[in-house]
Amino acid sequence: MPVRVVGFDGDDTLWHSETRFHVTQGEFRELLQRHVPDADVDARLAEMEMKNLSIYGYGVKSFTLSMLETAIELTAGRIPTSDLEVILGWGKRMLMEPTKLLDGVEKTLRDLGGRYDLLLITKGDLFDQESKLARSGLGELFLGVEILSEKNAETYRGVFTRRGIKPEDFVMVGNSLRSDVVPVVGLGARAVHIPYEVTWHHEHVPEDELPASGWSRVATIADLSGVLGSLDR
Amino acid sequence: MPVRVVGFDGDDTLWHSETRFHVTQGEFRELLQRHVPDADVDARLAEMEMKNLSIYGYGVKSFTLSMLETAIELTAGRIPTSDLEVILGWGKRMLMEPTKLLDGVEKTLRDLGGRYDLLLITKGDLFDQESKLARSGLGELFLGVEILSEKNAETYRGVFTRRGIKPEDFVMVGNSLRSDVVPVVGLGARAVHIPYEVTWHHEHVPEDELPASGWSRVATIADLSGVLGSLDR
Repeated sequence: MPVRVVGFDGDDTLWHSETRFHVTQGEFRELLQRHVPDADVDARLAEMEMKNLSIYGYGVKSFTLSMLETAIELTAGRIPTSDLEVILGWGKRMLMEPTKLLDGVEKTLRDLGGRYDLLLITKGDLFDQESKLARSGLGELFLGVEILSEKNAETYRGVFTRRGIKPEDFVMVGNSLRSDVVPVVGLGARAVHIPYEVTWHHEHVPEDELPASGWSRVATIADLSGVLGSLDR
Repeated sequence: MPVRVVGFDGDDTLWHSETRFHVTQGEFRELLQRHVPDADVDARLAEMEMKNLSIYGYGVKSFTLSMLETAIELTAGRIPTSDLEVILGWGKRMLMEPTKLLDGVEKTLRDLGGRYDLLLITKGDLFDQESKLARSGLGELFLGVEILSEKNAETYRGVFTRRGIKPEDFVMVGNSLRSDVVPVVGLGARAVHIPYEVTWHHEHVPEDELPASGWSRVATIADLSGVLGSLDR
């Protein structure tokens, strides 16, 4: 079945993202353990993020607000204001960091852009995602950009409808089984999974919930061209 | 010139928004003045919001982060953590508040939906805007929804291109001269301004920068049908 449109996830597929959360979370753990040495900071922050997800949604601003709330709660309010100021600064630093592309991204996109319509389909904070795309220099390689508040069957179906895409013509490429593979394959489209070095706990999918077919896995984006070529036949 | 597509702003055009900022800002002023009685809290918060706009973008989460930063800075770190927790709580309360429609909105949209294609074109935080729309019950009245990180000539042009809209067929309806009128009229489309009871300082436009024609003003959304009818001829 010929491929016509290829959708790309942004965070951890085209540019590094989880690592910036990872680094900040390490600093956060260290900061809090000075006040509460025995606390499981990571577990408490993860709980807080999940609790706040339906109120805040995804993204750095949400993460920053959850760090602040965790810090206050975990220290029973004993954390000094100067430390909270440091946390606010981490959030800004994350938002202002240069967009660091993964190896081979630009070459692959330029190559595939000649053969397929390319879409960027990301989730998270609208402002942050647009800002990252602008700083990535990849903007003009995409025919369109879709920034979704959540990636599930319903929101992918919305993209297909808005853009007149038939699921059988579409391949989604991304690092998240939960966001880039499962819902897409469920709609009858195909997907290619490119694992990233770090996966956010929230994006994990148990092996037995993965679709039996309709998707494949490559090690790096440089391998994508070959896989798409074989799907194309 | 017949009107084919009518775009509606969301915040303070269809549902109350600035009032929730206004109320919270009043509480914030009161809270801070307990620590720094002589401070011009509103001016300092406004400055902070403008300084952070290019990093955070619009929305409640950005506003909350700017309140926290202002509170710490203005009290030179002397604000107790329990007060910062209160500010975090205000942010959540704003995000979870029921969507309160302005008078006449639902009736007007149902009426106009039979005559024109209706689009919702809002700016701000993606997650918060989608959540407000879902809670508004107005979702199915719109043919499409565009949530932009900023409303200017470039982003409106993007909407026109994506949706195949000719500027001369389009009328934008909203409470902000800066976001809903000036850029739209500049592209050769038309606009109807419906002032809201409170205008955020950032959205003010000096009278002499307003377009001389291409837009009109009505007092409430209930008057819209008549104005669109007269444009239609």
